[in-house]
Amino acid sequence: MVIGGDAAGMSAASQARRLKSPQELEIVAFERGNFTSFSACGIPYWVGGDVAERDDLIARTPEEHRERSIDLRMRTEVVEIDARERRVRARDLASGAEEWTAYDKLVIATGARPLRPDLPGIDALGVHGVQTLDDGQALLDTLTGTPGRRAVVIGAGYIGVEMAEALIGRGYEVTVVNRGKEPMSTLDPDMGRLVREAMTGMGITMVNDAEVTKILTADDGRARAVATEDREFPADVVVLGIGVRPETALARAAGLPLGEHGGLLTDLAMRVRGPVADGAIWAGGDCVEVLDLVSGRERHIALGTHANKHGQIIGSNVGGGYATFPGVVGTAVSKVCDLEIARTGLREKDARAAGLQYAAVTIESTSRAGYYPGAALMTVKMLAERRTGRLLGVQIVGREGAAKRVDVAAVALTARMTVEQMTALDLGYAPPFSPVWDPVLVAARKAVSAVRAGGA
Amino acid sequence: MVIGGDAAGMSAASQARRLKSPQELEIVAFERGNFTSFSACGIPYWVGGDVAERDDLIARTPEEHRERSIDLRMRTEVVEIDARERRVRARDLASGAEEWTAYDKLVIATGARPLRPDLPGIDALGVHGVQTLDDGQALLDTLTGTPGRRAVVIGAGYIGVEMAEALIGRGYEVTVVNRGKEPMSTLDPDMGRLVREAMTGMGITMVNDAEVTKILTADDGRARAVATEDREFPADVVVLGIGVRPETALARAAGLPLGEHGGLLTDLAMRVRGPVADGAIWAGGDCVEVLDLVSGRERHIALGTHANKHGQIIGSNVGGGYATFPGVVGTAVSKVCDLEIARTGLREKDARAAGLQYAAVTIESTSRAGYYPGAALMTVKMLAERRTGRLLGVQIVGREGAAKRVDVAAVALTARMTVEQMTALDLGYAPPFSPVWDPVLVAARKAVSAVRAGGA
Repeated sequence: MVIGGDAAGMSAASQARRLKSPQELEIVAFERGNFTSFSACGIPYWVGGDVAERDDLIARTPEEHRERSIDLRMRTEVVEIDARERRVRARDLASGAEEWTAYDKLVIATGARPLRPDLPGIDALGVHGVQTLDDGQALLDTLTGTPGRRAVVIGAGYIGVEMAEALIGRGYEVTVVNRGKEPMSTLDPDMGRLVREAMTGMGITMVNDAEVTKILTADDGRARAVATEDREFPADVVVLGIGVRPETALARAAGLPLGEHGGLLTDLAMRVRGPVADGAIWAGGDCVEVLDLVSGRERHIALGTHANKHGQIIGSNVGGGYATFPGVVGTAVSKVCDLEIARTGLREKDARAAGLQYAAVTIESTSRAGYYPGAALMTVKMLAERRTGRLLGVQIVGREGAAKRVDVAAVALTARMTVEQMTALDLGYAPPFSPVWDPVLVAARKAVSAVRAGGA
Repeated sequence: MVIGGDAAGMSAASQARRLKSPQELEIVAFERGNFTSFSACGIPYWVGGDVAERDDLIARTPEEHRERSIDLRMRTEVVEIDARERRVRARDLASGAEEWTAYDKLVIATGARPLRPDLPGIDALGVHGVQTLDDGQALLDTLTGTPGRRAVVIGAGYIGVEMAEALIGRGYEVTVVNRGKEPMSTLDPDMGRLVREAMTGMGITMVNDAEVTKILTADDGRARAVATEDREFPADVVVLGIGVRPETALARAAGLPLGEHGGLLTDLAMRVRGPVADGAIWAGGDCVEVLDLVSGRERHIALGTHANKHGQIIGSNVGGGYATFPGVVGTAVSKVCDLEIARTGLREKDARAAGLQYAAVTIESTSRAGYYPGAALMTVKMLAERRTGRLLGVQIVGREGAAKRVDVAAVALTARMTVEQMTALDLGYAPPFSPVWDPVLVAARKAVSAVRAGGA
């Protein structure tokens, strides 16, 4: 039995079905919404017009899942898990009827819920989250139905900056209001500054260090401005891009163990820990915490690629195979127009919180040989542990070719390489693709010197 | 003392100078040509017109080196190394005068020489190699001075395909005559076939399985056609792109140890092995063989990025520091127009030659989420060792975003990861940059299945 019909849940169902026939394994899945297996990460690009159709974001429809002999119950919300009796109570959202259904093995894939600050005016017309396809459609309806061209985005993380791009693309005057000192708090502030400068250069108004106090509404009930303590930003549309939290109310009520970020805690096979779950409950995707392999601590990361991996692993284990999820290194890539943003591993504050002492270096290099047309500047920041020289993290901000370069660091982190080892990495070189020293190697060389200079 | 003024030699000189002042270390460098520290890899792009000026390819001029207190002697060819007496005999190419000069430490960085088959007509006007800047200028002179628009490229390796692109870019009808079954013999033939198909689609005439027997000349001494056993290909210009061999005649005559590919053999600090060198001779760049970390055997790879690393390491060691070169995994990237070609690790025939049993899989995926504009197909081939599942090699052919993805595999090879470990890699995901499963991960998943299916 699967709770949640998106990436983790339906990947688990599909993988289990691959391993076990309907005669061997019955699969029931509950989804409270209208869609299955859709790409939430794609919503900004649909809103921005890069992706033409909502359905382009749907990897597999309910019908396609049912054709694979998955008993999928749409618009049906699980409202209680009874782990002792191994059953769940589900409500048909159309009729309101509730029913208990028994399981042998349960997969919790309830995802995340967007943060929605408790502000005056937050429920006004024209204020939109962008978590579900329904959210995206509602926002698009507002954009096409409203003549004004001023948009305010609250939050400057991934969702916020991607929505800023989407709205710029639609011809809006965009203001991003951000609580932090710089946008992209997943980067160190010195790298976030580069993002701010680039976004400002794109004509986006960046307001940092600003707490939204309320959303002002017009007489017709529509949002008309976003207010901070000392300013007002007129808005014909307001987009919330503040981030998400694990959706674990059900799990909490059932007595399952949650971590410090509110996510479910699992073992390496993605089984929920502890005596209540008793080895019969798995969990994956945005509702779980994952082990950060660099800091050795649990983190919450809502990202489709992890959800898909979790689903694959859960499905293998539930289907009688064997697979484990070793953890993450915290890789994330994003873009705002032609600015690429990437990070993996620890920021300076993460390293400090983990008790690690480190050297941090920053270099500028280019995506291609300097003499090759289109060579674009990129800035690479690298953290390495003092004494051992172990790579701790990399952040990259640049144009074409910047984002996916972080993958090299992601693999190096996984392999627990030192920056000295990294300087010898045999990375692809040809003038259209890289300088003779790839930017990641240039940063590694500087990090080696910095670690040495840091002494014992 | 340094023999050879290009990447390895001058990097070594520069790095040693960084560590030791002119009072502490005298540095003499001999270069027989007219240039120092130039990017041979950039020549195709200069010939093709992407790079405007020859001097764009020069990283550092003789004058710039001299400003750093390096006693650089241009147009001066070392004609003998006397390792026992620790001295070299050098000839001033202008005057013909020869002189012995003593050294305490010698760096051999004599590079590689292009293969030039002993064919009738090979020395005709209009037949060009592309190894040096002088070669590039001579070719450009032919291109601008000759009215015809038919070019024949002999060889379909990196140089050959890059020159095909350059000549297409200049409006030539291009024929590539290649000895192998498919172009790019650094790939397996099934991947080379994709390159052939794409090049044919670009309007390049690909002639495979063909041995050039002679170059036919016109009455004015200019090349007019390239002949194979059974055909003739009219040519207004002929470009040789057959590959290179280590330039080690001097070293051989001095009694220094050469490997099976004709390159100098060094230890991990890049010191030439054996009693003749006696610990006083270093070598790096295109004239040495390097350890292939995957097969455990020595290889010869002429590539600027290795030469720069070698120089850096030699310079550190000669300058009283300490650095080593652990070896390579054989990464190489290239392109023909918008087709990107990448490889790292072992091909099938390399694996067999190394005594390794393996599973090979091939997958197709896209560079971005399938629904995101510009998502381009790429084909990824992956080899993994039977039983252990250790990654052995990756080859990628595709469009935008294909080439540098091979870096992930290069790091994984260096870390001796298994394909199972690779399936969990935390690679950057966002719709503009990758499908939710990166193509490299899709290949790794299939390789896991193939290794399992292969049994014990």
